[in-house]
Amino acid sequence: MEHGIDFGEILLAFAAALFGAKLFGELAERVGQPAVLGELLAGILLGPSVLGLVPLSDAIFVLAEVGVVLLLFEVGLETNLEELVRVGAPALTVALAGMLLPFAGGYFVTRALGYEPLTAVFVGAALTATSIGITARVLSELKVLATREGQIILGAAVADDVLGLVILAVVSKVAGGGQIDGVTVARSTGLAIGFLVAAIAVGIPLSRRLVHVVGKASVRGMLGAVCVAFALSVAWAAKKADSAPIVGAFAAGMALARTNRRHDIDHALKPVVDIFAPVFFVYVGAQVNVKLLNPFVAENRPALLLGILLAVIGFLGKFAAGFCAWGKVRRAFIGAGMVPRGEVGLIFASVGLSTKALPDRVFVAVLVAVFATTFVAPPLLKLLRPKPA
Amino acid sequence: MEHGIDFGEILLAFAAALFGAKLFGELAERVGQPAVLGELLAGILLGPSVLGLVPLSDAIFVLAEVGVVLLLFEVGLETNLEELVRVGAPALTVALAGMLLPFAGGYFVTRALGYEPLTAVFVGAALTATSIGITARVLSELKVLATREGQIILGAAVADDVLGLVILAVVSKVAGGGQIDGVTVARSTGLAIGFLVAAIAVGIPLSRRLVHVVGKASVRGMLGAVCVAFALSVAWAAKKADSAPIVGAFAAGMALARTNRRHDIDHALKPVVDIFAPVFFVYVGAQVNVKLLNPFVAENRPALLLGILLAVIGFLGKFAAGFCAWGKVRRAFIGAGMVPRGEVGLIFASVGLSTKALPDRVFVAVLVAVFATTFVAPPLLKLLRPKPA
Repeated sequence: MEHGIDFGEILLAFAAALFGAKLFGELAERVGQPAVLGELLAGILLGPSVLGLVPLSDAIFVLAEVGVVLLLFEVGLETNLEELVRVGAPALTVALAGMLLPFAGGYFVTRALGYEPLTAVFVGAALTATSIGITARVLSELKVLATREGQIILGAAVADDVLGLVILAVVSKVAGGGQIDGVTVARSTGLAIGFLVAAIAVGIPLSRRLVHVVGKASVRGMLGAVCVAFALSVAWAAKKADSAPIVGAFAAGMALARTNRRHDIDHALKPVVDIFAPVFFVYVGAQVNVKLLNPFVAENRPALLLGILLAVIGFLGKFAAGFCAWGKVRRAFIGAGMVPRGEVGLIFASVGLSTKALPDRVFVAVLVAVFATTFVAPPLLKLLRPKPA
Repeated sequence: MEHGIDFGEILLAFAAALFGAKLFGELAERVGQPAVLGELLAGILLGPSVLGLVPLSDAIFVLAEVGVVLLLFEVGLETNLEELVRVGAPALTVALAGMLLPFAGGYFVTRALGYEPLTAVFVGAALTATSIGITARVLSELKVLATREGQIILGAAVADDVLGLVILAVVSKVAGGGQIDGVTVARSTGLAIGFLVAAIAVGIPLSRRLVHVVGKASVRGMLGAVCVAFALSVAWAAKKADSAPIVGAFAAGMALARTNRRHDIDHALKPVVDIFAPVFFVYVGAQVNVKLLNPFVAENRPALLLGILLAVIGFLGKFAAGFCAWGKVRRAFIGAGMVPRGEVGLIFASVGLSTKALPDRVFVAVLVAVFATTFVAPPLLKLLRPKPA
């Protein structure tokens, strides 16, 4: 029962994150912006570099991760698998273009500035990610998740997440001094894609059975708790298969969406997501160190300039990828949906830093690019949105 | 973003806790027992001493603590402050008798067996606690929270928790070689009681204001998130004032219960409690080491025998305390409600172990007594319950 953690600090951080997220979320909506932008800003203010109320501790990390897993579970519940498969080809094209263009741009600019090839590889890789969490949240807020554009963005973001983890596995191996060979790449790719297909194929009959059995139970809150347990299990399996927990949670949601209790599950899940998802967005914002962003401090400027350059490349690469979609769709909106880097870009940057592939200054520049693209996306999506489905 | 924790392990443990809690909860109900008994049993099975799926790690501790804080917040929401004040005198009498009798019994038996006075003080102190979490959960399941008996038990359990923390502060000081003086005891008591009174006095107007302001907001899930943030803040303040977070959360619930949005808040809170409270009960169960309970291992027997003796003393002391209540109430039910020791008894035991006041064998005996009283209470309460209000 004795623990090395201060539960009081966790209570305070959790409370501050919720108050801050809701206050700034409301303010953001009042000025016509998506609430998630306010939650990210609340995170910057509450994080270690300003008020210090929300620390980047293990405990807050756990609450934030639980939040994003539940959020993607809810997004999966609201996703129509057939529709997602129908947009499969354009979504995959957008995803691939959206990885290739920023990677090439980031690599060449970093090389042109005289950095090592390995550094350039990490910078390029960090720019390939798409934050499915932020995108999905904005699409949901704008009520366009069910539009063709929404489905293409979601499909491309999931593909990006799956492929991004393959790239991470490969560049981590390179940074560790390993060799890349076709077998490793093929194995990682097969595993990541295979998991998603298997999770949905096994998940659909399994979730029908589960909902059927649960329907006979009398204990309070059975349906919601068992479905959340199911999502957590698939998220765990995803992690075991070297994929990401959020991809597993999303797959679990899509499987449960095909049962006859979809609306009841969604009803039980929403209040939980309302309380835990904001912790995730505040946690993402809390990672911004505003001190490094002050342009009046001379030594910040090189990293800031490189960061702005990378942000522009990252933005243009993803935005252009949206125009690779076809059919009667608003391509600019799809491009905007691919722009936010969020947490996945941060994971690349921190792996790069810890393996010393990214020098400190370049690390800060990558963070600037990640956050700039994350913050610009919500208002841009709102501006370019198609009519709700 | 790099953390020293394995998020995969947390996902698995969380999923296992939920599945196990709901499965065993349902089975318990099918055999006519409260669901919480099944959740505790699921914890024993899933814990380190049997299956090892739910570790006693910091991350699970955080999720469990969040669960019990939210549970007590919900119990507070369903509690009528006037009714609680009305039963104040009998509740306080029951609480005091329920501390004095087990303490005296535990102290004298331990001394009679030849242990040090300090050891006897810790054993006695560990037997004074009442688990408000388990009691409140059973009362809620039996739908008797609103009866006079339910209110007396709840009031006495809160008083026990508040006074228990005073005792903990005092015995910890003694174990650390410090002196007890009247000033320290008076200061601790005043602080603990003062906090509860202040939290309710300030909390009622504050929560009215909060609900009023939140009513004007348009962001999704505002009311639930802000009220949870309020409860977490009061729980944090309680911890800062050397009281327990659950006491703060309970006070926050009672304050919000007096607003006109009580039912909406309860509605938003229930699904969250359904998912996090089971983690707490599984975590409590997971702390039982079944290996130490095997009577066929000769070296387990002395601790088991002492444990059974302490369990009987702990049971009789609390049960007898119920008969100190007056008015037209079912006294045996009140006594049964005071019996479970749960988490507070464990805190005493672990402080005793870490300060070396409790030898290993006595520590195990105290655990046996804590768990025996915890497990016997739910079926006993069900057996003795009065008619629902």
